[in-house]
Amino acid sequence: MPIISLLTDYGNRDAYVGVVKGVMIGIAPRATIVDVTHEIEPYNVGHAAFILRQVWPWFPTGTVHLVVVDPGVGSERRIIVGKYAGQYVVAPDNGLVTWVHRDFACEAMHVAEDRRYFLPNLSTTFHGRDIMAPVAAHLASGVKLRNFGRVADRLETLPMPLRAERMGPGWRGEVVYVDRFGNLVTNIQEEQLAPPRSAEAWRVLVGGVNVGPIRMTFSDAAVGSPVAFFGGVGHLEIAINQGRAVERFGATPIVEVSLTPNTS
Amino acid sequence: MPIISLLTDYGNRDAYVGVVKGVMIGIAPRATIVDVTHEIEPYNVGHAAFILRQVWPWFPTGTVHLVVVDPGVGSERRIIVGKYAGQYVVAPDNGLVTWVHRDFACEAMHVAEDRRYFLPNLSTTFHGRDIMAPVAAHLASGVKLRNFGRVADRLETLPMPLRAERMGPGWRGEVVYVDRFGNLVTNIQEEQLAPPRSAEAWRVLVGGVNVGPIRMTFSDAAVGSPVAFFGGVGHLEIAINQGRAVERFGATPIVEVSLTPNTS
Amino acid sequence: MPIISLLTDYGNRDAYVGVVKGVMIGIAPRATIVDVTHEIEPYNVGHAAFILRQVWPWFPTGTVHLVVVDPGVGSERRIIVGKYAGQYVVAPDNGLVTWVHRDFACEAMHVAEDRRYFLPNLSTTFHGRDIMAPVAAHLASGVKLRNFGRVADRLETLPMPLRAERMGPGWRGEVVYVDRFGNLVTNIQEEQLAPPRSAEAWRVLVGGVNVGPIRMTFSDAAVGSPVAFFGGVGHLEIAINQGRAVERFGATPIVEVSLTPNTS
Repeated sequence: MPIISLLTDYGNRDAYVGVVKGVMIGIAPRATIVDVTHEIEPYNVGHAAFILRQVWPWFPTGTVHLVVVDPGVGSERRIIVGKYAGQYVVAPDNGLVTWVHRDFACEAMHVAEDRRYFLPNLSTTFHGRDIMAPVAAHLASGVKLRNFGRVADRLETLPMPLRAERMGPGWRGEVVYVDRFGNLVTNIQEEQLAPPRSAEAWRVLVGGVNVGPIRMTFSDAAVGSPVAFFGGVGHLEIAINQGRAVERFGATPIVEVSLTPNTS
Repeated sequence: MPIISLLTDYGNRDAYVGVVKGVMIGIAPRATIVDVTHEIEPYNVGHAAFILRQVWPWFPTGTVHLVVVDPGVGSERRIIVGKYAGQYVVAPDNGLVTWVHRDFACEAMHVAEDRRYFLPNLSTTFHGRDIMAPVAAHLASGVKLRNFGRVADRLETLPMPLRAERMGPGWRGEVVYVDRFGNLVTNIQEEQLAPPRSAEAWRVLVGGVNVGPIRMTFSDAAVGSPVAFFGGVGHLEIAINQGRAVERFGATPIVEVSLTPNTS
Repeated sequence: MPIISLLTDYGNRDAYVGVVKGVMIGIAPRATIVDVTHEIEPYNVGHAAFILRQVWPWFPTGTVHLVVVDPGVGSERRIIVGKYAGQYVVAPDNGLVTWVHRDFACEAMHVAEDRRYFLPNLSTTFHGRDIMAPVAAHLASGVKLRNFGRVADRLETLPMPLRAERMGPGWRGEVVYVDRFGNLVTNIQEEQLAPPRSAEAWRVLVGGVNVGPIRMTFSDAAVGSPVAFFGGVGHLEIAINQGRAVERFGATPIVEVSLTPNTS
């Protein structure tokens, strides 16, 4: 059975999600629709782009990811249909694939423009329903990528810092995401600090505050204390054990990781 | 595979949704259950009635819509099983079908009263689980409408203004729904303004404030500016481009559309 | 088709839920995944344990309940795979099965430790993805309970008051859960007050305030008035008709039920 994942800023209180699902079920009745989230902050393309990257490696080959965060709906922005590492994405071309594009091999990228795969009547404000949902459903039903339109000759990407930068023997990074637990997810990645050194060798500063070495998990700190660790997605995260780091440090502190002489 | 859509005010943090799904899967294991929303404001029948109308045209023939917003649970209100334009609805008879009833052909309407299709033990406070979920699941499994009970001889509808009214050469309407983006959805509909005139010919006043002509989409206004346009559901909406109209105008302003001499 | 229910504190705005679903669909493509809730208050094991108990009786035989509220992730807490009354649970061993264990026959309880059923690389912070999701999916695909690991020789349970206590001819209980409607759910259960007496014979005090006899449903009180009734789950609940009891009484009042001479 084909799988369609759904990632939007539609929220969970209006009709938008139901409408989009209804359209897709009508076209691809055997598809399994999986909600990733609809609680992307309205118009927050960067937030959605990061989540798409996080879920990508965990879905099966052939999955179609429909991503709708579309502040430019009705303007001239294009809608793209792409394939990365065996999975598909349907989205407005506004930077939503930024992180996936950085980390996975792009096998194809087309513009969705063949109106045979759209609904017959197009509104100016709800292309999720009129264009992207039917395109995703036709894709899940076996329509080939090249049938949707011409090869895309360019791709919009976000101007955000996707990688931490070298700073002396350490790294200087930024918070790129705040999760529901109030954990700060940075752009400092585990492989940047390789070859592995003793966890004790690294010292983490969050907005100038020393939160100690890199730990294995947040329960390595006392309840209420800050702690740095590599999260499930391989990024350095700052947490408060059973608390909310975002309330202690704010949402956008600079995070530095410095190499400390191991004096033990 | 039969489809059951689910639209409730149960919220997403308690056991109610899981219980109702468990009951339906037990009776109709092959059904696909689609969440429309569970975030209807508690007891807000009008809100749910409007969303049911919005999703209705987009689901396939044969879909069963289970709608549970039931402030009168345990009182004498009836439970109805209806068919409109090839799709089904199971709901308490408290006005939830008001907008669907206005806009689609009613093919049948019965009272759910045959206890063979209920759970064996009825609580006084959870008829979503004990009556409506099993009725919806049996309906999705092929039980005929007439088997659930007698033909309904009346139907409750909401006392809300379903259509804008004529005012001189224009229209005077009200806000009937506020969506998650803070957009104000009015009861002024696109077909009321037909035959089409130049968008420039109409002038929109929201609570007495002139927000200009009717545009194609919200990105036709500057960021932060108000804009009126016909939304995906065909109703006149008031938005702030990348902002929240409900914070500028409140949730219930009177909206007027007047015809303006085209002086261009 | 096997059924997997999903009950977590992951929230609905991050990637966690999508990732866990992607992992399970990859292993058990024919499984139906049912969201119970992801809105458990972060780390609130007691809340999740109560909801698991509420949904348990309504799911079909063979259902696998994956429950992830895991403040101790990365510590030494074990992960358990159990069977109660024909259904399965996969969860960290931190008290999540407390209420189910009280009320249903435990048919088997094993420790999840055979790494063939885990993902190949284990993180220290996301065992929902790396251990529990694949174990649940393998279980739903037919792997036997005993294959996951040794029999569990002990089980963590919560130190909360699971039953109200006798107080003279009545009962003294506590609030164990507050639902989205602001209703207070107590640990006073319907069967404790058996053999049934006239509802008029019982008098309910909430934090010392007399809210009258036990009613059939919340609409038996005037709008805005408090009312006590046995909810769908068989526990005494305190509600305000169309209002929020938690705002009137707080979240943790002592609730007493006393037997009153029937003077009518």
